[in-house]
Amino acid sequence: MGVKSFDFTTAEAAAIDSVSFDDPSYTLGSRQFQPEDTIIGLPHSIIGGDHFTMMAGPCSVESEEHVKRMAKVAKEGGATILRGGAFKPRTSPYSFQGLGEDGLRFLREAADENDMDMITEVMDDTHVQMVADYTDIFQIGARNMQNFSLLKEVGKTDVAVGLKRGMSATIDDLLNAAEYIASEGNQNIFLIERGIRTFDNKYTRNTFDLGAIPVLRKLTHYPIIADPSHAVGEWDLVTPMANAAVAAGAQGEIVEIHDDPEHALSDGPQALKPKTYLEMCREVYAIRKVMDSFKEVSHVNS
Amino acid sequence: MGVKSFDFTTAEAAAIDSVSFDDPSYTLGSRQFQPEDTIIGLPHSIIGGDHFTMMAGPCSVESEEHVKRMAKVAKEGGATILRGGAFKPRTSPYSFQGLGEDGLRFLREAADENDMDMITEVMDDTHVQMVADYTDIFQIGARNMQNFSLLKEVGKTDVAVGLKRGMSATIDDLLNAAEYIASEGNQNIFLIERGIRTFDNKYTRNTFDLGAIPVLRKLTHYPIIADPSHAVGEWDLVTPMANAAVAAGAQGEIVEIHDDPEHALSDGPQALKPKTYLEMCREVYAIRKVMDSFKEVSHVNS
Amino acid sequence: MGVKSFDFTTAEAAAIDSVSFDDPSYTLGSRQFQPEDTIIGLPHSIIGGDHFTMMAGPCSVESEEHVKRMAKVAKEGGATILRGGAFKPRTSPYSFQGLGEDGLRFLREAADENDMDMITEVMDDTHVQMVADYTDIFQIGARNMQNFSLLKEVGKTDVAVGLKRGMSATIDDLLNAAEYIASEGNQNIFLIERGIRTFDNKYTRNTFDLGAIPVLRKLTHYPIIADPSHAVGEWDLVTPMANAAVAAGAQGEIVEIHDDPEHALSDGPQALKPKTYLEMCREVYAIRKVMDSFKEVSHVNS
Amino acid sequence: MGVKSFDFTTAEAAAIDSVSFDDPSYTLGSRQFQPEDTIIGLPHSIIGGDHFTMMAGPCSVESEEHVKRMAKVAKEGGATILRGGAFKPRTSPYSFQGLGEDGLRFLREAADENDMDMITEVMDDTHVQMVADYTDIFQIGARNMQNFSLLKEVGKTDVAVGLKRGMSATIDDLLNAAEYIASEGNQNIFLIERGIRTFDNKYTRNTFDLGAIPVLRKLTHYPIIADPSHAVGEWDLVTPMANAAVAAGAQGEIVEIHDDPEHALSDGPQALKPKTYLEMCREVYAIRKVMDSFKEVSHVNS
Repeated sequence: MGVKSFDFTTAEAAAIDSVSFDDPSYTLGSRQFQPEDTIIGLPHSIIGGDHFTMMAGPCSVESEEHVKRMAKVAKEGGATILRGGAFKPRTSPYSFQGLGEDGLRFLREAADENDMDMITEVMDDTHVQMVADYTDIFQIGARNMQNFSLLKEVGKTDVAVGLKRGMSATIDDLLNAAEYIASEGNQNIFLIERGIRTFDNKYTRNTFDLGAIPVLRKLTHYPIIADPSHAVGEWDLVTPMANAAVAAGAQGEIVEIHDDPEHALSDGPQALKPKTYLEMCREVYAIRKVMDSFKEVSHVNS
Repeated sequence: MGVKSFDFTTAEAAAIDSVSFDDPSYTLGSRQFQPEDTIIGLPHSIIGGDHFTMMAGPCSVESEEHVKRMAKVAKEGGATILRGGAFKPRTSPYSFQGLGEDGLRFLREAADENDMDMITEVMDDTHVQMVADYTDIFQIGARNMQNFSLLKEVGKTDVAVGLKRGMSATIDDLLNAAEYIASEGNQNIFLIERGIRTFDNKYTRNTFDLGAIPVLRKLTHYPIIADPSHAVGEWDLVTPMANAAVAAGAQGEIVEIHDDPEHALSDGPQALKPKTYLEMCREVYAIRKVMDSFKEVSHVNS
Repeated sequence: MGVKSFDFTTAEAAAIDSVSFDDPSYTLGSRQFQPEDTIIGLPHSIIGGDHFTMMAGPCSVESEEHVKRMAKVAKEGGATILRGGAFKPRTSPYSFQGLGEDGLRFLREAADENDMDMITEVMDDTHVQMVADYTDIFQIGARNMQNFSLLKEVGKTDVAVGLKRGMSATIDDLLNAAEYIASEGNQNIFLIERGIRTFDNKYTRNTFDLGAIPVLRKLTHYPIIADPSHAVGEWDLVTPMANAAVAAGAQGEIVEIHDDPEHALSDGPQALKPKTYLEMCREVYAIRKVMDSFKEVSHVNS
Repeated sequence: MGVKSFDFTTAEAAAIDSVSFDDPSYTLGSRQFQPEDTIIGLPHSIIGGDHFTMMAGPCSVESEEHVKRMAKVAKEGGATILRGGAFKPRTSPYSFQGLGEDGLRFLREAADENDMDMITEVMDDTHVQMVADYTDIFQIGARNMQNFSLLKEVGKTDVAVGLKRGMSATIDDLLNAAEYIASEGNQNIFLIERGIRTFDNKYTRNTFDLGAIPVLRKLTHYPIIADPSHAVGEWDLVTPMANAAVAAGAQGEIVEIHDDPEHALSDGPQALKPKTYLEMCREVYAIRKVMDSFKEVSHVNS
């Protein structure tokens, strides 16, 4: 415990200065420091670079039987990563808090049975080792984006980390939060845009900041994933926003599915039912295919 | 002058109530009131429904020669509507305010020479008749979205109106502003999403609220057009955002182009140079084509 | 019409540069340009400097009888300026739009009978001369803060102008808007902080940005007035916010009163009933008196 | 670990429903549940009710000698609680992170020598017991407002907790976060308004939401404390905002002081030097005294 000091090489110090002239200083995550894309390899998936990765599953793991049923649907749509919450960060302490370690086991089994990888949220630094025993990817939720103890703790592992942008986090804040993970040694990081808080939340839960996607792709080598479900909070807006995200350059999507959203234990209104999810996947891949046919992004206006 | 009263039919009153239970009450613009899309026919363009309309041109009309050169570029990219400002709403009174009526004449000639329609901003209700002598479409800028005198004045004409969302306007505010135009008799209206003000403007001038596009398409029958140029304010983000907008369901785009952005009299940093613009158009149309192949949007989650 | 050019002295140009290095350039309003406070003298009131000015009245002029009754209450609380809207900027075109010129006459008579000055909103540049025949002060509403035609038109008169900050206007935007008025020759300007739009509007209509008061007093010589009524939108929060505003250094307040808020034609929930208003005045003056006993604001941290 | 269930009495359930009809459900903190103010008694201070409590100290504990010198200044201004950070939540991992446990010991000694209580931030649930060995009050910082593991951990102690509002937390979010603490058994809670993130941060670091103070005092029985230092981020705005906060009904203030802000290890620009701080205290107490002379807040508009 105590003061931490860093010795930067001249190149690193230049990278810090070039990215931002004020306080932010995300050296390890900067394109100036590492021009080529970070690629994260998992048993069944590759995240980053020219790869496009679909992640899907229920908001919460609700039961062994349910998560296994949802895993099959996720897989059918082309997802290679199964999502599901076992520890849920709920605004109120009286809302459903998740199944805990049982939920992790159910999710692991559901992933394994379908040859999928698994992503699940870790909320507590004392849980990191236990969650690591089950998962392929830690998810750090929006509310914990600046829980620095937790960031450092996952940074000490070599498990991949999906870091969600906080509700009022600037792009610099997000990159600095990633730097907390990277500076502990773990650079298997991807960033998730999931909507920010603005003055208008009557029709959408948050405002999906799609402009952040090309900005982040320019600033950092980490993969950028879009979460249209939390961004809008309404199922019928998820497909248009998933389409928009891939067109904006997202390298993957993470979406919530449920076969009975009315009775979901959390976030039912934004869950896609199976047929809607499968149609969304078809659309997203079709746009992705057309994106692949475009020329490289040019950095010269001509 | 004085109190205005309205007699609503039962159907209209029901539409008001169904759209929103509190104050907003945009009857004429509501899908409940008119389920089918508004289609605006102009000499060289159709806006709305399944049509996709490209609008392009310089931010300001800078000279007769320049706007004519830009019109050719716009046309080459497939734009059928030429944009250009003759009266500029500038934050500071000491910034370039536009060429005035000369600018309108130059823009009209440039449009005519290329068989294009013309859109230009009107900022003052006393200018409405004069501007109408030149233009096919009035643009109402973000700063004037709640300039109710101006809205009413363009509402008394039969010239088409492109109404931009204000920087901090909610979706309901925008629909109510459109209602000021419509309630005077003019329903040749389309709405333009151009970014909103949020806490993060370091890398993008505004936050492009793409979620508003499917929301508006659900709530209203007016065409929804995207303005990626003002939304992000940086040329190299315009193409990804133009792509995202068409994927989100926008029925057209309005973008700024300039062949010498460094010396543009306004908004140079966001202007696309000709080659960049032509590539953007190719990408946007390719995504649009793939969008056309998708099924109708379903209103049932299944 | 057309390009406007300015010849600045070296001192003026330096003032522009010193205030802000980017676009804002509100020379005439800057403390660098005029260090001493602007003082606006009216028949019955002085605004600015060490003076504290209370303005009160109904949101809308509802009838001759009603506004005269409210004027007496306003006066009893120490207000020297009577407020009331004859032309109302309403979000929906179907809401009450005001009594028009009749309202102006009623308000003038009510002010005269009580030896008060009058402030009322002007929304349309074609109304400026007509409204000037009645009022001592033009109010420019938040929605018209960047209606540049209107700003220039009131700038051509010598009638005092109370300019409200727009809902999403930065402090620089507000000062630039004032510059539109001043650059036409009218420097009888005061600025009104009335709350901005943020993500939380469940309990308050807007977020009262009281920090803007000392910031503005530092940047500009124009008087700074607080409008707690619109800032919070709930009567029982008006007194605490009026108290906070005077403690923050506001040089006056403008509040809405009504003797039957449940039946007010606009903004009833925020109107103070007479007894509540009189108690608010007592509190505000008591805090103001204690403020007068404090030392000059020091510009050195010691 | 696992699902948590609650048995509410009818009265509690009614309180939940009455406060808010949607998701928020902060029963224990609600005035409906406990009408009388929470009063927190500490060895040298009382927080809540009609008491007014000053807390002051350096942003970070920088050295034993420095914090002791600052404690004397704090005490001289009337503060009974000494603040200082030993573990600092910094946006970047390369910024000064605090002295750790050494800092806690220095702060404890400085408080004891001056008969003061101590408040310091805890950022990590594994540190809770260790920090509790030194401090009288845990501070939960804005970035950790929804670090639910940490909230529960401090909720299991009987140490007082000062909970800061998150940068984009709604009032309901803040009350729900407090409920996480209370539901574990610890109701020695006070809430700190410290500014929210909005679109304008050129002149102030955040927007001080003073309207939240009377709103919170109405909704909850917990004491409400204002933090003008972080709200504005500039020393010369701290006194006007401290004055505004007490006028708005804050039951105390927490401010940052430093005798050499230019060389402070964190947040120098907002630190008050000793003379400025002492003058601020004089002003705040004078306004507080005048506030005491006002009538009870009335809940009837008359």
